[in-house]
Amino acid sequence: MQDRTVAVIGAGLIGQSWSALFAAHGYDVLAWDPANNWEERFQAKSSHALRQVCSIAPSLSEIGRIQAVGTLQEAVASAFWIQENAPESVPVKIELYEQIEESASKDAILASSTSSLTWSMLASSLRAPDRFITAHPFNPPHLMPLVEIFAPHPQTRETARGFYDGLGRHTVVLDREAVGHIANRLASALWREAVSLVEEGVASVSAIDAALVNGPGLRWSVIGAHMAYHLGGGSGGIEYYLRHLGPSQERRWASLGTPTLTQELVGKIVEGVLEEAGGRTIEELEAERDAALVRVLAAKAGGRL
Amino acid sequence: MQDRTVAVIGAGLIGQSWSALFAAHGYDVLAWDPANNWEERFQAKSSHALRQVCSIAPSLSEIGRIQAVGTLQEAVASAFWIQENAPESVPVKIELYEQIEESASKDAILASSTSSLTWSMLASSLRAPDRFITAHPFNPPHLMPLVEIFAPHPQTRETARGFYDGLGRHTVVLDREAVGHIANRLASALWREAVSLVEEGVASVSAIDAALVNGPGLRWSVIGAHMAYHLGGGSGGIEYYLRHLGPSQERRWASLGTPTLTQELVGKIVEGVLEEAGGRTIEELEAERDAALVRVLAAKAGGRL
Repeated sequence: MQDRTVAVIGAGLIGQSWSALFAAHGYDVLAWDPANNWEERFQAKSSHALRQVCSIAPSLSEIGRIQAVGTLQEAVASAFWIQENAPESVPVKIELYEQIEESASKDAILASSTSSLTWSMLASSLRAPDRFITAHPFNPPHLMPLVEIFAPHPQTRETARGFYDGLGRHTVVLDREAVGHIANRLASALWREAVSLVEEGVASVSAIDAALVNGPGLRWSVIGAHMAYHLGGGSGGIEYYLRHLGPSQERRWASLGTPTLTQELVGKIVEGVLEEAGGRTIEELEAERDAALVRVLAAKAGGRL
Repeated sequence: MQDRTVAVIGAGLIGQSWSALFAAHGYDVLAWDPANNWEERFQAKSSHALRQVCSIAPSLSEIGRIQAVGTLQEAVASAFWIQENAPESVPVKIELYEQIEESASKDAILASSTSSLTWSMLASSLRAPDRFITAHPFNPPHLMPLVEIFAPHPQTRETARGFYDGLGRHTVVLDREAVGHIANRLASALWREAVSLVEEGVASVSAIDAALVNGPGLRWSVIGAHMAYHLGGGSGGIEYYLRHLGPSQERRWASLGTPTLTQELVGKIVEGVLEEAGGRTIEELEAERDAALVRVLAAKAGGRL
């Protein structure tokens, strides 16, 4: 086992992005994917992401090597860290884990990037569940700081926190596992209301997105939701807010929508998003998003909140 | 009526901030508040906010004058725009509107900053409802770009859009009025799930806030929720996403929490927020939030998404 070698199992969107982040921090990456002819696209995408990481953190000096390898065994044999980004299927992941445990060092840590499965669903048939964690990044992982960790074994948890913090990530530890962890539950709750506003005809898709980006989204890029209500309570803070405005929040909660994705509603959302995209392709929109993220991340690096 | 004079009725947190924004764009502000001895605090707070606006938009040349006046009549008599920021009470606002209509120019536009009331609740007893709008800013209005407008009269709507856009705001027009407009409904939906995660013991208050700020909040500062799912659908975009992952989103929605703000839960949130604040006062936290917003806004000004 070499403590500078990371295995990336599953080399799609998430694996490409992780590879760039690992290499930017000096780790050698051995990536493997079961697809056919994945290597060329993987190398192009991970190189592009690596350049983006280096543009945000220009002080990074030692860049690791990213290699596409032909077998899972080759990828994991010398790795001290194994980041798994396979499709969101319990049987697929469990079968992979069997192969990984056969070939990996017994001291290696296995981290799943799973967004919608939980530790308990995946750990049951592992030989060494104490070295298994879920470590969910937020897309795109090479730019977004968040990594959500669930790791029941305390020492593995501390090792994981140290590893991802060392990659310039902001790790958040869950005390109890949850489907969707924290971030995707919050995102899902917000989107439900955004869909409901379309359903009710309150505003267009692009108006709703613009309200988010120029209002609460912008605020939440610098301050959390709980803390925002602390400041919303004036000098009495969150306690004043909850005691005086808690009942009106509960009434607001009760009035929020519970939409059903009917054919008609799906059609309205699709039409609205395409209107908002205004002819820009997915790749153009991704490039704009990434460029904007790079600017905002550079600005945020200037201070703490 | 002078088309460079704006009346600010209600000179608390929102009125102070509006005043700074109006003055930064060359308008003379006449502010009035029914409180006792409000003038000194108002002048200090609005001057501070004015300096912040000028630091973001250094190209602003002609700065207007901010004046605290002794009567509502004096504030509105010469104004072409009247921004009302009174407490969120229908009778209080309706009584104010009677006084405003008595003294204001018949061509002036009356805009309410109301966050939790709607146009219909407020317009019923107006002599000239066609020149009345709701124009809800997002706190703090001198920094946050969003202004949500509901204005049934088409010409007034266009005038309002032009006025707030001219202040460097991002106006969003509602097609149908809604309690909480768009932004506060989205914020409320997200906070409900953030509270639910505390209730369920998934993570601490500070961990939940950190997940938001480093994950979805950061993303929503550059791209809306609908558009984010367009990019989450790969090359198939939002249509692919909704057709293939719509059902799993509906299951996720069904699994989201519906918390009740019991004494115990309120206690957990208050304790968690105070732990997150780590001894920083509300004023210190506000200053940190504003400084971070100024940095992010300057970064966002570099490009469009």
